[in-house]
Amino acid sequence: MKSWVAGAEGSGYDVTHLPYGVFSSGDDEPRVGVRIGDFVVDLAPLAASEMLEGAHVFETRSLNAFMALGRPAWDSVRGWLFEMLTDEEERETVEPFLQPVSEVVMHMPFEVADYVDFYCSLHHASNTGRIFRPDAEPLRPNWRHLPVGYHGRAGTVVPSGTPVVRPNGQRKSEQAESPAYEPTRRLDIEAELGFVVGAPSARGRSVGTAAFADHVFGVVLVNDWSARDIQGWESVPLGPFLAKSFATSIATWVTPLAALSSAYVDLPGQDPEPLPYLAVDDPAGLDVEVEIELNGTVVSRPPYRTMYWSPAQMLAHLTVNGASLRTGDLYASGTISGPDPGQRGSLLELSWGGREPFDLAGTKRSFLEDGDVVVLRATAPGADDTRILLGEVAGRIEPADRD
Amino acid sequence: MKSWVAGAEGSGYDVTHLPYGVFSSGDDEPRVGVRIGDFVVDLAPLAASEMLEGAHVFETRSLNAFMALGRPAWDSVRGWLFEMLTDEEERETVEPFLQPVSEVVMHMPFEVADYVDFYCSLHHASNTGRIFRPDAEPLRPNWRHLPVGYHGRAGTVVPSGTPVVRPNGQRKSEQAESPAYEPTRRLDIEAELGFVVGAPSARGRSVGTAAFADHVFGVVLVNDWSARDIQGWESVPLGPFLAKSFATSIATWVTPLAALSSAYVDLPGQDPEPLPYLAVDDPAGLDVEVEIELNGTVVSRPPYRTMYWSPAQMLAHLTVNGASLRTGDLYASGTISGPDPGQRGSLLELSWGGREPFDLAGTKRSFLEDGDVVVLRATAPGADDTRILLGEVAGRIEPADRD
Repeated sequence: MKSWVAGAEGSGYDVTHLPYGVFSSGDDEPRVGVRIGDFVVDLAPLAASEMLEGAHVFETRSLNAFMALGRPAWDSVRGWLFEMLTDEEERETVEPFLQPVSEVVMHMPFEVADYVDFYCSLHHASNTGRIFRPDAEPLRPNWRHLPVGYHGRAGTVVPSGTPVVRPNGQRKSEQAESPAYEPTRRLDIEAELGFVVGAPSARGRSVGTAAFADHVFGVVLVNDWSARDIQGWESVPLGPFLAKSFATSIATWVTPLAALSSAYVDLPGQDPEPLPYLAVDDPAGLDVEVEIELNGTVVSRPPYRTMYWSPAQMLAHLTVNGASLRTGDLYASGTISGPDPGQRGSLLELSWGGREPFDLAGTKRSFLEDGDVVVLRATAPGADDTRILLGEVAGRIEPADRD
Repeated sequence: MKSWVAGAEGSGYDVTHLPYGVFSSGDDEPRVGVRIGDFVVDLAPLAASEMLEGAHVFETRSLNAFMALGRPAWDSVRGWLFEMLTDEEERETVEPFLQPVSEVVMHMPFEVADYVDFYCSLHHASNTGRIFRPDAEPLRPNWRHLPVGYHGRAGTVVPSGTPVVRPNGQRKSEQAESPAYEPTRRLDIEAELGFVVGAPSARGRSVGTAAFADHVFGVVLVNDWSARDIQGWESVPLGPFLAKSFATSIATWVTPLAALSSAYVDLPGQDPEPLPYLAVDDPAGLDVEVEIELNGTVVSRPPYRTMYWSPAQMLAHLTVNGASLRTGDLYASGTISGPDPGQRGSLLELSWGGREPFDLAGTKRSFLEDGDVVVLRATAPGADDTRILLGEVAGRIEPADRD
């Protein structure tokens, strides 16, 4: 089925995709929209004019109210949108509510409740092990038994396009006797996929892998900015803190989980077999192709299908202790790195800890410099042999605050 | 100055204290109250009847709206309350809005934005080092240079009185080849003091130690429940995750920072001298006396004045990378342990890793058993030689979910 919206086919935003976001135009209040081709559908007035039940959830400046309704409502709205955007007879009804994306401002798509970051790539975990502990076994003993994760700062999750100020902090070189306070010298990216929780769960009860699609509303690309020197000094024994908490960028368009139904692939293989609470029916992986662009040059193409732990396993692990889910919870995969050097999801790995700078348009680079612009993009197979384009994540590095 | 409210003097809740909370009675909606003696002042209707500017902030089910107003508003409301509760002529005005605390239900006092947990006790950090790494230097190299901290789960911060379900999870003994999935066997407490952020800050700018009182609204006792066996297996390299995220209990009464003005004491001493961004004017410590009661018996009396890092230093460190603050951010001190065995703030330390069970009413105990009830209490010097009683934190352990 094709949409009557001109240019939607082949744009990555055809009717098999339909990502949600929060937009505004002119002095209007931000509100929920859905993307089709190069247009945003202004959902609140369209839904109201069509007397759609619960239309008020689109009048708010976040997706949270809609996401809280749960899977049946998500599927129902998606079915209705598909109908409105493919049926030529609905054209007259819908067209007044279309606005060119070039004429709107995109905002944070949802209010982040808790933010958890995992560490699910075997290749990333192995690479960091080899870089930092070259004489030891790269993987820690727990790594193949559970998806390792930790909580990040929800309040500094920012939408694509937000400038990122180079953080100040403590760093200590091995030679130095004491730490220095200065701007990070090893500012890095982490290309990740984030999963957005819509339906909450009760405290004290776990959410099994089979309930993944009942709770997860959709997916966003994530750039988990990292200051490696701050991280190295602060992280033992309680994990990363200020090295990550200054900013985490996400896409402004949330791809509904339903749009990825053709993207499921088998996991690369888990050995040993996970404990029963982590068991999944294959295919549980996602065939999302990511691309990292630095100052206009693609420097890496991390393949999400190489990830060891699946999104449903992350969710089951996150809640196995009875931790409840809230609408707006965001959990990210951790850096996506494939087996090949050109598939690494961080500059730390691309420059092998800074020891092997990589080529960037004729110069040698390791970590981020002021003024650098990073853009993450991703595609996935859509239904009907289409290809969907996930919302990009862009950010520019600004100099450190020197006051 | 004394209050005309009978019984307020000497109760720990006299006019020098005036903690805020959220209460309801009967079928009423929860709303903001302030405690005086054994009564709650129903603030919204009193403030409205007195035409207090901004009275609507008390009509909500959280302190966030009031806390967002900032220090001048907090001081002004506190001054007004002092006046209303000490001036005998206001008695007729206020009395209709007093309800006995025994007849109301207390709720979460505020919506937690981000939750950060620090590790600021030298004695706690040294004890855990000695317990887990007996042959190594107990303190990590970074410990005396920065207040080590990490993000916890905001969505599972619960009010005093909420039952705590024993969490399931992965644990692995040193002898075992693989981890087991089962209820934690080493469920523990951590007695901490929590600091509640009222006034937000901008992303990209740090909040210096001198701005502490402009941002921090008040203080709550915290019990940071911990599953030590889960923690031991999961924590390397990204820190505690499921070992902590099932529940963190806080008091339902928030003690205003202003009520602790007589509680400041010198820090025990910092060596080496901290970096300039962590410099504080003495006295920066707080003389809060904590008491841990297990099944009706006091098992420890941790003294907060022995903490190495001050609350202002935690805040400055938390924001030094430009991480913004939001109204409702909660940061906790980490386990409070003094130098003496009877001052340890966790069962891990009281039982020395379970190797030296302690006496509890004639029995030997190490970690928490189902049905155990833990109550944390604390007092501090108030103004005018009074003693204020912080809101207690109580919790009962329920058996693990076995589905």
